[in-house]
Amino acid sequence: MAEDLSTLIEDVIDAGKPEQEVLLGKLLNQKEFDALALLLESLPQEQRLSTWQQIPPESRIDILVEMRSDPRESLLDAMSLDELDALFKDLDAEDLVELTESLPPRLVDRALLAMDERQRKYYEVAQQYADNLAGHWIDHHLYVLPQNAKVRDALRLMRRELPEYVDAVYLVNRAGHFSQAVRLGAVIGAPDHVHLTDLVEPDFSQVRAEENALDAALKVQRSGYSALPLVDESGALLGRLDIGVASEIVNEYYEGQIMAGAGMDEDEDLFSPVVTSAKNRAVWLGINLMTAFAAAWFIGLFEATLQEVVALAVLMPVVASMGGIAGSQTLTLIIRGLALGQVSSGNRKALLVKELRVGGLNGAIWSLVVGIVVTFWFSSPLIGFIIALAILMNIVAAAFSGVVIPIILDKLRLDPALSGSVVLTTVTDIVGFVAFLGIGTLILL
Amino acid sequence: MAEDLSTLIEDVIDAGKPEQEVLLGKLLNQKEFDALALLLESLPQEQRLSTWQQIPPESRIDILVEMRSDPRESLLDAMSLDELDALFKDLDAEDLVELTESLPPRLVDRALLAMDERQRKYYEVAQQYADNLAGHWIDHHLYVLPQNAKVRDALRLMRRELPEYVDAVYLVNRAGHFSQAVRLGAVIGAPDHVHLTDLVEPDFSQVRAEENALDAALKVQRSGYSALPLVDESGALLGRLDIGVASEIVNEYYEGQIMAGAGMDEDEDLFSPVVTSAKNRAVWLGINLMTAFAAAWFIGLFEATLQEVVALAVLMPVVASMGGIAGSQTLTLIIRGLALGQVSSGNRKALLVKELRVGGLNGAIWSLVVGIVVTFWFSSPLIGFIIALAILMNIVAAAFSGVVIPIILDKLRLDPALSGSVVLTTVTDIVGFVAFLGIGTLILL
Repeated sequence: MAEDLSTLIEDVIDAGKPEQEVLLGKLLNQKEFDALALLLESLPQEQRLSTWQQIPPESRIDILVEMRSDPRESLLDAMSLDELDALFKDLDAEDLVELTESLPPRLVDRALLAMDERQRKYYEVAQQYADNLAGHWIDHHLYVLPQNAKVRDALRLMRRELPEYVDAVYLVNRAGHFSQAVRLGAVIGAPDHVHLTDLVEPDFSQVRAEENALDAALKVQRSGYSALPLVDESGALLGRLDIGVASEIVNEYYEGQIMAGAGMDEDEDLFSPVVTSAKNRAVWLGINLMTAFAAAWFIGLFEATLQEVVALAVLMPVVASMGGIAGSQTLTLIIRGLALGQVSSGNRKALLVKELRVGGLNGAIWSLVVGIVVTFWFSSPLIGFIIALAILMNIVAAAFSGVVIPIILDKLRLDPALSGSVVLTTVTDIVGFVAFLGIGTLILL
Repeated sequence: MAEDLSTLIEDVIDAGKPEQEVLLGKLLNQKEFDALALLLESLPQEQRLSTWQQIPPESRIDILVEMRSDPRESLLDAMSLDELDALFKDLDAEDLVELTESLPPRLVDRALLAMDERQRKYYEVAQQYADNLAGHWIDHHLYVLPQNAKVRDALRLMRRELPEYVDAVYLVNRAGHFSQAVRLGAVIGAPDHVHLTDLVEPDFSQVRAEENALDAALKVQRSGYSALPLVDESGALLGRLDIGVASEIVNEYYEGQIMAGAGMDEDEDLFSPVVTSAKNRAVWLGINLMTAFAAAWFIGLFEATLQEVVALAVLMPVVASMGGIAGSQTLTLIIRGLALGQVSSGNRKALLVKELRVGGLNGAIWSLVVGIVVTFWFSSPLIGFIIALAILMNIVAAAFSGVVIPIILDKLRLDPALSGSVVLTTVTDIVGFVAFLGIGTLILL
């Protein structure tokens, strides 16, 4: 796939018009909407728009919903009202939920007006829940029957249409509350007159609409079923969360974590306009600049020492950097643990103790190595001793911060994947510089 | 789920024996093997082992296959031969494929001896493919019929058993090559005597065993089907890749990317023994130390300048840090693009131009800000000018490196997520220090 796509991008960019059309036609015929979405995202703005013009109106919505929101917005912005109206024809609720964040409110209203009554109602249900809650991602293609239904009723449903990712019939009581589920496999093998309640799966899981979307999505992926019923607070069956949507939620979460490490979000467009992109990234540079200035201020406290012993100036980045790396290892481990729910008040202390020990051991080893190298490099056992001590202190401080910082950020409901590394680096920079230059001042002056 | 798990960990760690048993019993009854796996991973070694002793033998294999390999190894290592033999009873091929990396070869052989003929053959098929290829993750629960089969044949199959994630019947020709697929929905609605070939899905995708596992898994997730047929080079149907396994492959890939950023792998145990953990992380610290020493060596070239103008020593980390942050933003974007196949020879140049422009713009803005701050801080417009110029140069160099480094690493078949940031930081550190101190030397001395 990845390699196919690379070839494809080259072909579209290099090929003349006629070949390009053949290629696009082939992808459209095979309904490779996801590949088309990735392709459009990979094209510079101008080629993206000209390629988009070649996509027939009836395929456009299927491609748009697969795209990341920034590049999608670049296409929606360039579309005329007529083109948009064509897009909004036969729009279903799930598509509009996906598009909403890329459309100005007046266009969302326009789309809603074009929608049929039932889909509009579905849309409103989804919008009651924020996009980090399971309810936002609800799907309405499901088999539902009353609890007293029999095998023949289920078969009648199945003979009509089998939607994607449906592998069970959900039974509801008179109040519309989800009660149990029967696998299609059990239905197909059974005689017509058998009650479905005799065939139910034991302990079939469900997902609450108010539940965190990521937790719910992981639950679906791990359930072994293609979808789980989605219920409201009272237990009423609202719809379902299927494994296709669940996989999108999980993949977006991971992509978000990776992008957050560099202060960006998962919707960042490979070819966003220069000004937009610079603006998106400037904030992160600004925050980082403040922490760098803070570190510089601390270094400034030791100007006199630096002037005396210029070797300290040469070596100080080594101390900061070793602390930063060691800290980021602990930080990464704890962030993953927090995301999986594995770090709790029960094991926090044990974790801290373990990380401090690992830090102590690695600190001892590497401060010894650095101490020896520096002793020979600068022909000064004293400077070797100073840097060894500073590195040991900084690696241990890094282990402590790597555990404590993400836990505190998580308690403050800040995303540790986004802000953890900035805070950590600030700590390891300052501890590193102050320890190194401070000990140097005490010993050498 | 995440919150439930946190509570659970607290309960297991804090609660006395009897309550703990009740809790475990509940999870076991509900077959929450994944939650149990996460729970065991979250416990310090001692408690992990004592909790493991309370898990009845028949549930153990289901939990082990859900665990990450490092913590799993800690449990397998502690098990007696008798316990292992109990584990190996009724082991199927897919379970053993999962366990193989955590078991010494002689125990794998022991497990194979206990296995029935068919499962052993399945295991051997899977082992022909490395674990980064789709064939390694093959599943054998599928519906297969010859091309001339009718609806009644398919229904007969379905009446027996419907395995997890089966939503289609695969048709093979006489040579055993996959030809087409029929959705279960189409079968259920149709009369008995209809030929399945009249009901086939157009353009049903397939996955090649030699294909990259991640690409194949993403293809399954995006297909809208619960599984895709897995074929060998010649087109012979070997088995299938289902969406449950596909989701595990994708999630492990993303976790690996996140952990690689800190030089660790996705199997790192939250509570690995201190020495193991320190050893795993030491390599990364060592590599980083070499790059830090390289940077220090470059700083050392300017000792004379630093002695003259100590302000340069105070400010030099600011220059390096701004370059590092700007570079990591570009790097993260390009690494994602490479993983998705979106960066190719067709759009590389356009990407480089765009990133250089973004770098130029952000470099101009932030060098101005830093220049002004430094001018007032050190009452020296000259130093302000020097740092502004150095930051502009470093941010542009960072944009260039952020595009070029991951592309080169990828060509060399090195994982850019693992080594990209080290190489990039080395470049931005050295460019930053040399530019700043070099310009400083030229202008001030």
